[in-house]
Amino acid sequence: MDTRFGLDRRVTLAGDFALAGGGVLPELTIAYETYGTLNANRSNAILVCHALTGDQYLASTHPITGKPGWWTRLVGPGKPVDPEHWFVICANVLGGCMGSTGPSSIDPRDGRAFAMRFPVITLSDMVAAQARLLDHLGIDCLAAVIGGSMGGMQALTWAVNHPARVKKVVAIATAARHSAQNIAFHEVGRQAIMADPNWAGGTYAPGKPPAAGLAVARMAAHITYLSEEGLTEKFGRRLQNRDTVSFGFDADFQVESYLRHQGLSFVERFDANSYLYITRAMDYFDLAEAHDGNLARAFAGVQARFCLVSFTSDWLYPTAESRRIVRALNAAGAPVSFVELESPFGHDAFLLDAPEMNRVVNGFLTA
Amino acid sequence: MDTRFGLDRRVTLAGDFALAGGGVLPELTIAYETYGTLNANRSNAILVCHALTGDQYLASTHPITGKPGWWTRLVGPGKPVDPEHWFVICANVLGGCMGSTGPSSIDPRDGRAFAMRFPVITLSDMVAAQARLLDHLGIDCLAAVIGGSMGGMQALTWAVNHPARVKKVVAIATAARHSAQNIAFHEVGRQAIMADPNWAGGTYAPGKPPAAGLAVARMAAHITYLSEEGLTEKFGRRLQNRDTVSFGFDADFQVESYLRHQGLSFVERFDANSYLYITRAMDYFDLAEAHDGNLARAFAGVQARFCLVSFTSDWLYPTAESRRIVRALNAAGAPVSFVELESPFGHDAFLLDAPEMNRVVNGFLTA
Repeated sequence: MDTRFGLDRRVTLAGDFALAGGGVLPELTIAYETYGTLNANRSNAILVCHALTGDQYLASTHPITGKPGWWTRLVGPGKPVDPEHWFVICANVLGGCMGSTGPSSIDPRDGRAFAMRFPVITLSDMVAAQARLLDHLGIDCLAAVIGGSMGGMQALTWAVNHPARVKKVVAIATAARHSAQNIAFHEVGRQAIMADPNWAGGTYAPGKPPAAGLAVARMAAHITYLSEEGLTEKFGRRLQNRDTVSFGFDADFQVESYLRHQGLSFVERFDANSYLYITRAMDYFDLAEAHDGNLARAFAGVQARFCLVSFTSDWLYPTAESRRIVRALNAAGAPVSFVELESPFGHDAFLLDAPEMNRVVNGFLTA
Repeated sequence: MDTRFGLDRRVTLAGDFALAGGGVLPELTIAYETYGTLNANRSNAILVCHALTGDQYLASTHPITGKPGWWTRLVGPGKPVDPEHWFVICANVLGGCMGSTGPSSIDPRDGRAFAMRFPVITLSDMVAAQARLLDHLGIDCLAAVIGGSMGGMQALTWAVNHPARVKKVVAIATAARHSAQNIAFHEVGRQAIMADPNWAGGTYAPGKPPAAGLAVARMAAHITYLSEEGLTEKFGRRLQNRDTVSFGFDADFQVESYLRHQGLSFVERFDANSYLYITRAMDYFDLAEAHDGNLARAFAGVQARFCLVSFTSDWLYPTAESRRIVRALNAAGAPVSFVELESPFGHDAFLLDAPEMNRVVNGFLTA
């Protein structure tokens, strides 16, 4: 049995890892999982890229929360990405906090945690780290890269930066750049974290994180993951465990209670500095930037086929952003299919039960 | 000359002021301004109600910021609300921090600031306080109540709670209730304030406010005042005083710099506890609540004529909310005109140059 494959793997790749921003990491650790079996000609590998607060526990129980993997609705037995047929890889992103090199990692040069000495990274760096992982796993070419949200950004970056290594790209609920509003929400989150005295310039001890600030950041972000329509349907103005308002500052409304819970539970599983670095990487993301804003030129060398999916009520990465990608891919002559799916659940729709999305992904992978 | 009239007035009305939530204030101070001259039959008074972070400095220089009044585009010589013709009143709301009774006021019963001992108030309480001011000014009936955002909520409440005292209502960029998403954003702001150790349960000294928390609250709220479209137009991904990104956590992007400035300047003029109480009052706002959710029934007794204005890109109080009010007023048999104006500037549009809005308001007031 190849010990590189399976659940809860971790590999440290020695040697300098150069970053887009000019920084260098002295080594690179990647925490990842694989599901299924790599076939003889190594042609059935699918890389699934996770979103901002996701991790490598794609289809297995999360070690901290005890919850099922974050995309078991798409990945698993009988699902479009079935480990029976595919060799599925999911890695914690560079900058993350679930085992891959990130701000909470120890800098081997001095034995102290990087904290804010960690270099600012980009989506390209995350993808380059994944490419190093594929080298380690002995996989030259991916049958597909699949991702939603920031995962979709990585998938698009894969096709652009490593055109010969990707056959198909599935990019869901995503964008080719971060908009001013996207940046604005992330900046609120970062300021909330940095305003927490416990943050202490990023030097907090593991047991004393800037929990209050990180919870506020998560609450603000969480609103952007849901739609106004979805919030109204799910919570409306319904009260939480009471018949009348308290005339106080308790969580009278269900939506308040829900948000507070989201904030509090998040801090148990996520690192505040990682949140800073990953949101920064997303804000810096603009595939067209190196091409004078011409996205079609960014896609000029791609060799993959593309499948784009957006959701009607997603206002974080709205359909217009997917259409922009589709137009640019068309202009670049790349084969692309696109579907906008009806959903009241906003950006989060891609993580929820989405039978139509599953049909689309299944059709695209098996075509 | 009547000393009740003019700029920078303040009156303390003795005697208990009972609140909707059951609390009682031992006295009521209202800080207000008037512009123009009350006519002989006292029929030319217009009350302008301010929004969440507004104040009584409607059309005169703000004492802290030195900026012009907040609605000089609508109120002033040659404007639709011209003090040459109208007697214009604007009062700092109950719960505010610019002189009216609020959490930073001294409780006369013990000589200490109320802070979080201040009772939770409602929009109805704010309007009741304004009604007491009108009694003091000797005005039985308003020619009009005008307001945008929370000011519009007050204007609607005036028509419902004091039907005989209002002839016309102009409600701009507003809603008859706070939605789940509205509540969610406010809750993020409140949690940001309360997470700031300087908040100290609301007992902060005037010189040591929870500035960082309040700034984060303002930043989050500010995003909701602008549209995605407007942010893209105004800032896009343009950098602030640099040619390339810094690969750091400075405000690389103009939108970050702008938001940070909004947050920092806000804390110089606003009280954190007031922010808590006023947002809470807005979250509690639902005109239909006392009528089993039937908004038409809430409007059953109104005697005023109504003018509703919404803006296409306002996603905080979107056109659908204005339409809901219009339908309910129609069902209640109340005369109402409604216009949705094109604007890329989101909720803030009502405070900006809006010639069409001015024409609509002028037409409605002079009809």
